[in-house]
Amino acid sequence: MVLEKKNLLSIKDLKKEEIQYVLELAESFREVSTRDIKKIPTLRGRTIVNLFIEPSTRTRTSFELAAKRLSADVVNISAKGSSLVKGESLKDTAKTIEALGADAVIIRHSSAGAAIFFAENVKCKVINAGDGAHEHPTQALLDLYTIKEKLGRINDLNVGIIGDIAHSRVARSNISVLNKMGAKVTLIAPPTLIPVKIEAMGAEVAYDFDRVIGKFDVIYMLRIQTERQNESLFPSIREYAKLFGLNLERLKKAKKDVLIMHPGPMNRGIEISSEVADIPQTVAAEQVTNGLGIRMAVLYLLLGGGAVGEVAV
Amino acid sequence: MVLEKKNLLSIKDLKKEEIQYVLELAESFREVSTRDIKKIPTLRGRTIVNLFIEPSTRTRTSFELAAKRLSADVVNISAKGSSLVKGESLKDTAKTIEALGADAVIIRHSSAGAAIFFAENVKCKVINAGDGAHEHPTQALLDLYTIKEKLGRINDLNVGIIGDIAHSRVARSNISVLNKMGAKVTLIAPPTLIPVKIEAMGAEVAYDFDRVIGKFDVIYMLRIQTERQNESLFPSIREYAKLFGLNLERLKKAKKDVLIMHPGPMNRGIEISSEVADIPQTVAAEQVTNGLGIRMAVLYLLLGGGAVGEVAV
Amino acid sequence: MVLEKKNLLSIKDLKKEEIQYVLELAESFREVSTRDIKKIPTLRGRTIVNLFIEPSTRTRTSFELAAKRLSADVVNISAKGSSLVKGESLKDTAKTIEALGADAVIIRHSSAGAAIFFAENVKCKVINAGDGAHEHPTQALLDLYTIKEKLGRINDLNVGIIGDIAHSRVARSNISVLNKMGAKVTLIAPPTLIPVKIEAMGAEVAYDFDRVIGKFDVIYMLRIQTERQNESLFPSIREYAKLFGLNLERLKKAKKDVLIMHPGPMNRGIEISSEVADIPQTVAAEQVTNGLGIRMAVLYLLLGGGAVGEVAV
Repeated sequence: MVLEKKNLLSIKDLKKEEIQYVLELAESFREVSTRDIKKIPTLRGRTIVNLFIEPSTRTRTSFELAAKRLSADVVNISAKGSSLVKGESLKDTAKTIEALGADAVIIRHSSAGAAIFFAENVKCKVINAGDGAHEHPTQALLDLYTIKEKLGRINDLNVGIIGDIAHSRVARSNISVLNKMGAKVTLIAPPTLIPVKIEAMGAEVAYDFDRVIGKFDVIYMLRIQTERQNESLFPSIREYAKLFGLNLERLKKAKKDVLIMHPGPMNRGIEISSEVADIPQTVAAEQVTNGLGIRMAVLYLLLGGGAVGEVAV
Repeated sequence: MVLEKKNLLSIKDLKKEEIQYVLELAESFREVSTRDIKKIPTLRGRTIVNLFIEPSTRTRTSFELAAKRLSADVVNISAKGSSLVKGESLKDTAKTIEALGADAVIIRHSSAGAAIFFAENVKCKVINAGDGAHEHPTQALLDLYTIKEKLGRINDLNVGIIGDIAHSRVARSNISVLNKMGAKVTLIAPPTLIPVKIEAMGAEVAYDFDRVIGKFDVIYMLRIQTERQNESLFPSIREYAKLFGLNLERLKKAKKDVLIMHPGPMNRGIEISSEVADIPQTVAAEQVTNGLGIRMAVLYLLLGGGAVGEVAV
Repeated sequence: MVLEKKNLLSIKDLKKEEIQYVLELAESFREVSTRDIKKIPTLRGRTIVNLFIEPSTRTRTSFELAAKRLSADVVNISAKGSSLVKGESLKDTAKTIEALGADAVIIRHSSAGAAIFFAENVKCKVINAGDGAHEHPTQALLDLYTIKEKLGRINDLNVGIIGDIAHSRVARSNISVLNKMGAKVTLIAPPTLIPVKIEAMGAEVAYDFDRVIGKFDVIYMLRIQTERQNESLFPSIREYAKLFGLNLERLKKAKKDVLIMHPGPMNRGIEISSEVADIPQTVAAEQVTNGLGIRMAVLYLLLGGGAVGEVAV
């Protein structure tokens, strides 16, 4: 299967069948990472640029390892101390990276739309690794993979996403993909952290976590940016943790085998208590592992093409 | 052909025939970067250290990719947070990197002469990737390559270099190599940005861009360091742009097919207008692409030796 | 031979025979670094993470090259700008890196005990590359290797370690391993830089360098952290250099062929004079070279296993 779009800028770029295909492919690729020799020659001699204008060690490392396990050459560029990035427009950075012969650019940027703008200026493939509060499509894919792996399906599941919905690209990409695959999404947060007209995306909104927690098959806790407190978006960390944090006490009201997810890094004691973070139902580490498989699959599909049977895994 | 000098510290290290040979070799290597598998085994198992004591993502990335496409192992060392660099003399840094078994060190440093000093303290090969306002030989080579590729020759061409000549290693290396290859160089800038006795390098000086622009085959715009404004080296950014910036209006006075070059990163709206930056005559992106070929050629010649026929490209 | 412990967290993790075996193996691996193709396929496809939460270019580069020469894939993570490290507990960082499929993690941290804590939270192998004032086992091994190579034995040698013993993991690991291998260690420093009860580790203490210098086969100069001056741990840099620095004048009182060592980076003019730093008896550069061999040996033993005869060097 060849993807219809040449880039992965938004989770909306993928059709339902394409998403299912990415998940299948990720399954094969995830197996590579369990071998002693975690490496296949698929993308040997390809150049992949990790352009992290907003820093994210976690995502950068995941993409870097995905590329290396496919035998590609990876170059990391971060904004810090970068004369490339500092002194020029994003357009010129795009032109420069294209001129260096990059086959794919993985871009992380603090501004919504940056990945789309970047892609408009280059012929090579572009993967959005998070642009402002806009999108983070590979995160949505790895979350989908994890839910399907753990619960066997996506369709008709009740998923609660709790936290700073207004500023979260993870929330935005997840709502989009979960809806597309047939899950029902409920967003839970203080009103100040819920964007206006979010219901248009097909999600319900609730303000009282305790009242709705019982219906979820999946509870997805977002990382709270503690600096938002200074913007007066929520009263205090302690108040937030009390009303919206997931602790053992609150968990008693949830379904017994509810799946608990978190994109990391976790603020233990804020959105998730340390006890809940460590129970087997919390699959944050599995999400990380699955992210590698998903990113290998996406890189393979964008750069290598071909059908599953053709993958020399 | 084997280069006479073991290092590339100054463009003056290369004889005319050697320069021609580097350009020929770059042509072969540039082709490697157009393949799907952008990689040849020439320098497999060699260790190349990118020592960027002054940061430059653009140049570092270019050398890193050049080395990787030759299959060398590359280690990046930047001054930021470097206990290696911070706490010791450049001599000891040199001794340490030599002791780690580096085959070649690519050094970028804010002080003129740093590359020469470094090379005096190690047995391995050293490439100057820019030392203060002194030299940047691979930039001069890639510019030469670009001119020859676009205009078919260097000899007798009229080249105008516009900008902060006084603080520019790019200008210095380019004047030197263009003279050697038979071009005529004119330097254009406010008097405060022209170093004393620069005519001794074999270049003419002009202060009125509009009066001389008509004679050039190549217009080379240097990046203006906007912080120089505070040093009172030029009155204001707006004034500078008006008198020395290249815009469509001014370009009308130039030869119709004049080649426009810029080493990047560009300050759109200052030394070059956004419109001029985007016309096909402006070959900034081609310069970047050619830089990779030049750097592969230089690494190959310093580390691999041998004649063109011997290159397993 | 297989090491008894799965990690290298403290030099005490290694039995005497294991230490001797590491030194033998390092001899073979050091030879690899003298080849044109400095690379063997031993750890191809293994993932090694360089987790430097406290920066150290010197040690990071040494481990990175060691891993690359064994053909492993290396990912560097530094604390600077790391959302991985910044926003989460060390436990979660450990879980994340494990989830990425790391085979080994090399950890440098400013807190004593960090490497042990990290290792308790992961199944993969962990190498302590320095944790606070606690331990730096590969430094002790490379120092041991260097002494044995230069003087032919360790047993019964008189070793003086001079400098900030109280805050030095290098001192602590070296005292431990030198004692185990039969050397006699004397520590020399102002009383404020000698920790209480250090004699329990099996070392003698002296405060007058000149009085004891004559008995040493090895003089090991520690790097002085000049910022300690502000903590009033010693009167002034000049005073320290006068009483405890190694200069040509003081060296006259030492044995003629005494071996002079320094872990780097050197403060020329403080703990060691520039003249002494440059005489052939001072083997700081050899220590760096030997460090690579030691680190290749340690990575091989932890990740590859097997006996010397089995090493495809």
